[in-house]
Amino acid sequence: MSNTATNSTVHQVITPAELLEHWQGHRSLTRRVIEAFPEKEFFNHSIGGMRTFAELTMELLAIAGPGIKEIATGETSPLQEHIEHGNKKTFLLELWDKATEEINTHYKQIPVERFHETIKTFGQYEGTVISSIFYFIDNEIHHRGQGYVYLRDLGIEPPYFWER
Amino acid sequence: MSNTATNSTVHQVITPAELLEHWQGHRSLTRRVIEAFPEKEFFNHSIGGMRTFAELTMELLAIAGPGIKEIATGETSPLQEHIEHGNKKTFLLELWDKATEEINTHYKQIPVERFHETIKTFGQYEGTVISSIFYFIDNEIHHRGQGYVYLRDLGIEPPYFWER
Repeated sequence: MSNTATNSTVHQVITPAELLEHWQGHRSLTRRVIEAFPEKEFFNHSIGGMRTFAELTMELLAIAGPGIKEIATGETSPLQEHIEHGNKKTFLLELWDKATEEINTHYKQIPVERFHETIKTFGQYEGTVISSIFYFIDNEIHHRGQGYVYLRDLGIEPPYFWER
Repeated sequence: MSNTATNSTVHQVITPAELLEHWQGHRSLTRRVIEAFPEKEFFNHSIGGMRTFAELTMELLAIAGPGIKEIATGETSPLQEHIEHGNKKTFLLELWDKATEEINTHYKQIPVERFHETIKTFGQYEGTVISSIFYFIDNEIHHRGQGYVYLRDLGIEPPYFWER
């Protein structure tokens, strides 16, 4: 057994606190991918008719903070993927950091007994609390991987995937 | 509470069986992404000097089955990312299906009490059992997202991300 494992963790796959840390580690990497884009290409560059990384970032912002708030509070609202950003990366990075705090606050309001509860996020996507949170995380990894291709296409080296 | 939640699951974030299903759902989607590539482009197409999707697939094959076998059995071996595939997609798809079975077999040999144990995969990557398994899954989502860009760049519509 690991020295860091306590009695309360050793009979679980992962604890709520560990999952939050895992999620925020991914969000920290995504933040560095946003930073790695030149401002112009962040808002303009894409491949094969796909969305720009700014548009993908707005989807991620629409999901993570509002999604976890909805799970915690039960207050539903539709997805809001359009933000008046004025082509300023710093504006979206500030929203990113605000979302980091919102996630920390609302996630901690969800007791572990609720993770298998059936819910409907954004008024339409049915799942459990855990399947919804995994969707939020996995969707971010998926789109961030696409951002890595955009960066490589622009001749820019992305941050290491394993650094969180 | 969900009707599908049993007493044994309601005090956990996720059970070992659910995490396996989640993982195999992702692997099923990746298999369909491999299938979506024309054979030639699977082995030849890339963007910005990145690896082809065949090369990324070989990395995923090198990690998932051997990684989980190593965690289950304790038998270490170095990463083997090069496979003599003869430019045949069907050959790698057969290895994919073989890995699906290997993962099912070896994963089930890992008791939940071991998920917080500190281990070193492939003789070098230190983590816990759960952080290693998350790395295997997340790394696959990351590279599969890159495959989606390759497909879009080829004018091919990828499978829906949410279909597992």
